[in-house]
Amino acid sequence: MTDWIAVDWGTSRLRAWVMSLDGQVVASLESEEGMSKLLPDQFEPALLALLDEHLPQGKQTLVICCGMVGARQGWLEADYLPVPCYPAIQQCGVKAAANDARLDVRILPGVKQTQPADVMRGEETQIAGYLKTHLYFGGVLCLPGTHTKWVQVSGQKIQRFSTCMTGELFSLLSQQSVLQHSLNDEGWDQAAFIERVQSSFAEPVAVTRQLFALRSEALLSDLSSATARARLSGMLIGLELAAEKNLWQSGEVVVMGASKLTDHYVLALEAVGVSARRADGNQMTLEGLAAAYNLLLENDR
Amino acid sequence: MTDWIAVDWGTSRLRAWVMSLDGQVVASLESEEGMSKLLPDQFEPALLALLDEHLPQGKQTLVICCGMVGARQGWLEADYLPVPCYPAIQQCGVKAAANDARLDVRILPGVKQTQPADVMRGEETQIAGYLKTHLYFGGVLCLPGTHTKWVQVSGQKIQRFSTCMTGELFSLLSQQSVLQHSLNDEGWDQAAFIERVQSSFAEPVAVTRQLFALRSEALLSDLSSATARARLSGMLIGLELAAEKNLWQSGEVVVMGASKLTDHYVLALEAVGVSARRADGNQMTLEGLAAAYNLLLENDR
Repeated sequence: MTDWIAVDWGTSRLRAWVMSLDGQVVASLESEEGMSKLLPDQFEPALLALLDEHLPQGKQTLVICCGMVGARQGWLEADYLPVPCYPAIQQCGVKAAANDARLDVRILPGVKQTQPADVMRGEETQIAGYLKTHLYFGGVLCLPGTHTKWVQVSGQKIQRFSTCMTGELFSLLSQQSVLQHSLNDEGWDQAAFIERVQSSFAEPVAVTRQLFALRSEALLSDLSSATARARLSGMLIGLELAAEKNLWQSGEVVVMGASKLTDHYVLALEAVGVSARRADGNQMTLEGLAAAYNLLLENDR
Repeated sequence: MTDWIAVDWGTSRLRAWVMSLDGQVVASLESEEGMSKLLPDQFEPALLALLDEHLPQGKQTLVICCGMVGARQGWLEADYLPVPCYPAIQQCGVKAAANDARLDVRILPGVKQTQPADVMRGEETQIAGYLKTHLYFGGVLCLPGTHTKWVQVSGQKIQRFSTCMTGELFSLLSQQSVLQHSLNDEGWDQAAFIERVQSSFAEPVAVTRQLFALRSEALLSDLSSATARARLSGMLIGLELAAEKNLWQSGEVVVMGASKLTDHYVLALEAVGVSARRADGNQMTLEGLAAAYNLLLENDR
């Protein structure tokens, strides 16, 4: 029997966990109906297409959503909490209107920072999950992804954060730029990755003139796609580590995200002398959504 | 009466000048049939579609082409001259097979550098044109474009060069990334451009974390598209100036390209204390193609 439903609704994907009354995951569901593919009135149908059979008749089920679903281009714009903030105890969410009487949809707010300007949506819930399970953590969370977040945390609060577009830059350069011809296979050269993390961290400005060299070396000396791909990734992550040095030097570093990407970041941090711990991004998102659910129940009492 | 035809065939455009016996431009023609849109057997039809009425019957007309038409994905791969080289007196070209008996098509070689690996195609002809009209020039030529080239020249030779993907990065970020939502108008904020050239030149590594801020500021404080666009351009050009500093510090700088982009680079160089001269990119390409034509005539004697 479904108690409530946890939803992580990002730019490119919709993922849901159906939760039972005793707090277990009954079903894990996923679709490609991300925010970027949907107009405001298409969110409810996309949700029903995924969840219909798990919604009990004759009652309303809470569906708690985090992520880009609450962006300006999403279902309904949910506000941002300003830093410093407690992500785990300020998540109440706004109610999104739904036609199906079985749905009680709440969209959680993001987090904003005024100076320097920055925003997050979805990551705050993952952070809330991490803080719920690591009560005395103080340090830096790195959440790698399309837009990687570096987040300084202490006293259960997000203190400040910074975003790098490293994942998106890698996608654009490897799939849409002239470099695509030199990175067309999936292979991976670990030594090349580490070498470039280190050299780019040491001399970030050189990356600007080394990008096109991936194409030139492929043309002139048959640089393999595996090496070119690892070098590009290493250059961009090395650059990011140089740019975010002040942040990650300020405390213990935990990398939290998808498995393979987390590996790359942990390895890159090691390459510049930092030993980072790992956390499972999906699990922390679910923990954060459960924290919001418990908060809603408490507030309703 | 057509004597010969000069062709600049780039990635996205095909441009031709029909030359008369007395060395005048009879017609300037242009189409969107750039290299990237054509398979090898589509180059001749694209050329004929543009030139047909200008090709005299009963004789072969020399059509001298520079640019990406000679790339691996082009009509026929033309080799590279290794640096250091004289671009103006080594341009003989390879003959591309054509079905139409009126065509004698020659594709000029590019230029390559082994360490660090780099290549150019088309720019060497523009440089040849500049050197033909500035016999004693020694200094640095900046050729802004999709892939901006910084070229050190002395004694009529290309000595070394370096490529930055600044133009392509600007296109990808402004049209395909999350920043597109914040840069969707054409406007331009000159003061913001100059401010960002200077700050990025002074602290290049910060650009990595300032890109996403363009989106955040648009969301949080209604940053205008004109300011965001100028800031993005300023950041990327400032970064490029920092990366290529060793090159452009080595002598007088001449910026040679399309009018508006040349303006931006001259302004950016001024913002970091360098007074650069300008040259007309199209005219220099035509001069370079004419130099190759004269060389072919001499070799045939």
